[in-house]
Amino acid sequence: MIAEILSIGTELLMGQIVNSDAQYLSRRLPELGISVYWHVTVGDNPARARDAIAQALSRADLVITTGGLGPTEDDLTKEMLAEALGLEMQLDPDSLETIASFFRGRNRPMAENNRRQAYFPQGALVMPNRRGTAPGCIVRHGEKIVAVLPGPPHELEDMYEQQLLPYLSKLKDRTITSKFLRFIGIGESDVETRLLDLFHSDNPTLALYCSPGEVMARVTASCPSGEDPSPLIEGVEREICDRLGSHVYAEGLYQSMPMTLLDLMRSRGLTLALAESCTGGMLAAQLVDCPGASDVFVEGFVTYANEAKTRALGVSPDVIVRFGAVSEECALAMAEGAKTASGADCALSVTGIAGPDGGSDEKPVGTVYVGLVGPFPERVVRLNLRGDRTRIRSLSCLNAQNLLREALLEG
Amino acid sequence: MIAEILSIGTELLMGQIVNSDAQYLSRRLPELGISVYWHVTVGDNPARARDAIAQALSRADLVITTGGLGPTEDDLTKEMLAEALGLEMQLDPDSLETIASFFRGRNRPMAENNRRQAYFPQGALVMPNRRGTAPGCIVRHGEKIVAVLPGPPHELEDMYEQQLLPYLSKLKDRTITSKFLRFIGIGESDVETRLLDLFHSDNPTLALYCSPGEVMARVTASCPSGEDPSPLIEGVEREICDRLGSHVYAEGLYQSMPMTLLDLMRSRGLTLALAESCTGGMLAAQLVDCPGASDVFVEGFVTYANEAKTRALGVSPDVIVRFGAVSEECALAMAEGAKTASGADCALSVTGIAGPDGGSDEKPVGTVYVGLVGPFPERVVRLNLRGDRTRIRSLSCLNAQNLLREALLEG
Repeated sequence: MIAEILSIGTELLMGQIVNSDAQYLSRRLPELGISVYWHVTVGDNPARARDAIAQALSRADLVITTGGLGPTEDDLTKEMLAEALGLEMQLDPDSLETIASFFRGRNRPMAENNRRQAYFPQGALVMPNRRGTAPGCIVRHGEKIVAVLPGPPHELEDMYEQQLLPYLSKLKDRTITSKFLRFIGIGESDVETRLLDLFHSDNPTLALYCSPGEVMARVTASCPSGEDPSPLIEGVEREICDRLGSHVYAEGLYQSMPMTLLDLMRSRGLTLALAESCTGGMLAAQLVDCPGASDVFVEGFVTYANEAKTRALGVSPDVIVRFGAVSEECALAMAEGAKTASGADCALSVTGIAGPDGGSDEKPVGTVYVGLVGPFPERVVRLNLRGDRTRIRSLSCLNAQNLLREALLEG
Repeated sequence: MIAEILSIGTELLMGQIVNSDAQYLSRRLPELGISVYWHVTVGDNPARARDAIAQALSRADLVITTGGLGPTEDDLTKEMLAEALGLEMQLDPDSLETIASFFRGRNRPMAENNRRQAYFPQGALVMPNRRGTAPGCIVRHGEKIVAVLPGPPHELEDMYEQQLLPYLSKLKDRTITSKFLRFIGIGESDVETRLLDLFHSDNPTLALYCSPGEVMARVTASCPSGEDPSPLIEGVEREICDRLGSHVYAEGLYQSMPMTLLDLMRSRGLTLALAESCTGGMLAAQLVDCPGASDVFVEGFVTYANEAKTRALGVSPDVIVRFGAVSEECALAMAEGAKTASGADCALSVTGIAGPDGGSDEKPVGTVYVGLVGPFPERVVRLNLRGDRTRIRSLSCLNAQNLLREALLEG
């Protein structure tokens, strides 16, 4: 099945926002064996929107529109779709009631315009919006399918996951399930090599996604409706975990390294302090980004200046003079200082040269030391990272978190 | 002039990356009076790439392609463009020499494939790539113009700014210059109202862009080639600054609030310490993200737990019990503690409820206090923010930085 993603919104053509909806759908559709061949974006212009819908229908089996479902006159996706297909627009009373109760629940008056959101092309299957006022819909047109999704990403993702994905898999008379596994400390080509034979399988299928410092695999299994594809996935998952061992750090599309680390620390009843130099608070911020981080994360020291390393963490000026602030010795002294000052069970430190300046032949830009102390033997690693300042700092955070994860798994 | 942005790359259709190039170009082209009507993305597929180029040429005056300039067989943008226009490919010896010297400079052997990057459709104007190996080019075809840019954003942005933008403005026999002004503490509609008459001007033109917590204006002036559009811009700029006063916090597309604040502190010879609770290090990380932050930023305390507020910052447990950790009193005590402990000239603190849990009727999610002490009267503000955890934390950082900026401007 061939798909086209058609985004409708002048804010995209003006560059006000980036098209993350197209990215999300492009990542998810291959699970269903659907190939995305085109992304097209047009503005809130009736003629161009209608043309784009017609062209998409002429070349794709599945057209997914995003955006243009708001209450204003500019929002015209459903109307243009109806025109392109020669259908009337019809009121869906259930949707109207849902929208009205949304406003009642928030003690806000419902604008007359919001009624428009309850109209759909005749014969459409309405998809309620659990996170906003604009419902989506699915329209069948001969062999073709058009799915209409709202633009705001958290609304679109929920509607896709809860409604469109099940609809599309049912259509195939198949139950389709995916599992995401996340790897660290191993490159894409290494993962490919170790899992080579698994890529040849038709069911489950395996696909890889890379982002800086990590690799993610999607395992997708399908079986006739009514059967359970889980055992198929579990077999491959076990195989992957056997082959990649502790490189596998998490399951799930949204399960990040900070969440994994916090869960692991929480399950062991351990608390954490941080001492950051070149990452400058980024490591702490990533942990605090996870709701409930306070169970684990006690305190962070952002000791960017050398005097701060000495004053707040008790790093001896002698260590800094003899070995430098970017050294194994300083990283360990920072971690020890943070543990002592905070009273936490573990402390993690990062000190390095994020660039663009400050590198030397011996310690070029990208040289980063991570120190770790806790109820296990102390550790320190040197990272040799490449990239710009932001990338070096991000990779430092990821690697520091992984150092602690490994210590917890081994300890 | 009507433009289409045509992105070529399977990695976009797979959702491996988001199309930030299309966003960047869509933001910049209106400066030249060019309207973007379509974004289209196709994969590394010869037939679909060729069709997409032909369709873009049929409906747009300017087609900008992004991506598909790498050294591998998959990278086929220039070849498909040549086919669509019925042109031969020709070697550009200068480009070959530049690519070869790029590899020599890095002591790496040049792969045979890299030679492909030195071939262009006959008659093309080559645009050297200062940040990578893939040159771009401009091809005129009757009244139409096709500009071919590399995919990696830092290469594309540099080539646009340094080469395509001047080319396109020269084409109009005009010199076109833009200036960006950034505003804080004022909403989009307020900015619009205060600048209403300026939007009616044809030259310079004015456009607004919004992002969470701030508004940016682009002022674009054009005049016949050889004349200087700067006085035109300066007139409008003065007018905007008069009307918006200290809401104008920076000039320049890339001049962020942290950079502005660091410059201001540096020019006054002041140092800064931070005490963060709900932002959890994000504020420090934003400052450290700017190269050279160490002149100003001395130390950060991420005191997420209440005991840490007491231990590291000397916040009296009594203050926390009586007023709560999210209170004016606690924010000020945190700032004072950070100033004392670090010896910095100024200290800024943030404590609040970022959600999703922890809100009450009196202090709902989004309640954030920012405290500031320094060589000026102490200040504390209560923010009532809306949005999810990430948005509340980001807006807290921006507002905290602005509180200090205002104090410096007034003090």
